[in-house]
Amino acid sequence: MALVHYPVRNRDGQTIASAVTNLDIHDLARAGRTFGVERIFIVTPLVDQKTLVGQIVDHWISGYGGIANPDRKEALKLVAIRDTLEEVRCEILGRHPDIPLMTVATTARQSQGTIQDEELCNWVEREGNCLLVFGTAWGLSEEALQLSDRILTPITGRGSYNHLSVRSAVSIILDRLVNPRTGSGR
Amino acid sequence: MALVHYPVRNRDGQTIASAVTNLDIHDLARAGRTFGVERIFIVTPLVDQKTLVGQIVDHWISGYGGIANPDRKEALKLVAIRDTLEEVRCEILGRHPDIPLMTVATTARQSQGTIQDEELCNWVEREGNCLLVFGTAWGLSEEALQLSDRILTPITGRGSYNHLSVRSAVSIILDRLVNPRTGSGR
Repeated sequence: MALVHYPVRNRDGQTIASAVTNLDIHDLARAGRTFGVERIFIVTPLVDQKTLVGQIVDHWISGYGGIANPDRKEALKLVAIRDTLEEVRCEILGRHPDIPLMTVATTARQSQGTIQDEELCNWVEREGNCLLVFGTAWGLSEEALQLSDRILTPITGRGSYNHLSVRSAVSIILDRLVNPRTGSGR
Repeated sequence: MALVHYPVRNRDGQTIASAVTNLDIHDLARAGRTFGVERIFIVTPLVDQKTLVGQIVDHWISGYGGIANPDRKEALKLVAIRDTLEEVRCEILGRHPDIPLMTVATTARQSQGTIQDEELCNWVEREGNCLLVFGTAWGLSEEALQLSDRILTPITGRGSYNHLSVRSAVSIILDRLVNPRTGSGR
């Protein structure tokens, strides 16, 4: 999966580069490791942000963090830093040249023709790899959505309020894909 | 639901009071509001921690935060600060004297006789209210588990690694209870 910091939207819908949040890295790594995600790409083109993420990850992989908390090391090992979503796509296709790749964007906004988690589940089981793309700030920009093959049907709760943190959204979507609701049972 | 900071376990299994994490409050409030939780209790007996949580919540309810981001205000309004889990239980029973209350603790540790989310779902739909209890740090202490009526079956992913953040666990469990896997369909 990829956590995108550019291009994303700000509160006014303008395209911006957001700052990396330390707890995003930890929560996504822990959820990713728990649910069997192959790699977690932190996407930002900003040099200082890439340096910061690198320092955080190093602390847990090579530094004291990993000695004090080996479980966290195990999770943070999945994290990679990349400049663009396109670079991530190319890397996955390079690593698995014979496996089709579906890039699936996530958003809280309703739209037509989205893919349901059950359908995505089946596709991943039978057809190929999936790159799940999550946006920070006010979500992926139109540009990032259009780079994707499909958009995942948004998570809904009770009523119309729907403002989950990206940490919550990632966790729920991974659980839905790994522990699906229909068919295979849990 | 309640997020407990005492009594919880540290890395060595000893009972401690943990520090409050700002993002826990936000993520739980946002997920709670999305999934229709009535109230989110931050449980800590530490005076300085209660003051801190109060200041954070005030910023979003009465201060500038709520003006800048009304959605966040809407979520943070659910947050209440209490000293103990017992106080939370009494308050809920006082507010709903005629409705049975099941206190359900959560843990990542496997144990006998846990309640499945489907079963809890049915109970809440037909029988009464549920207080979901989450632990910070290395999880709820034995003492907190024994205060509960039932323990929820732990979330599992792929394989044996199971170190989700409490923010992830809360989000997944609320989604499972509101959008159940079996029966009612989504």
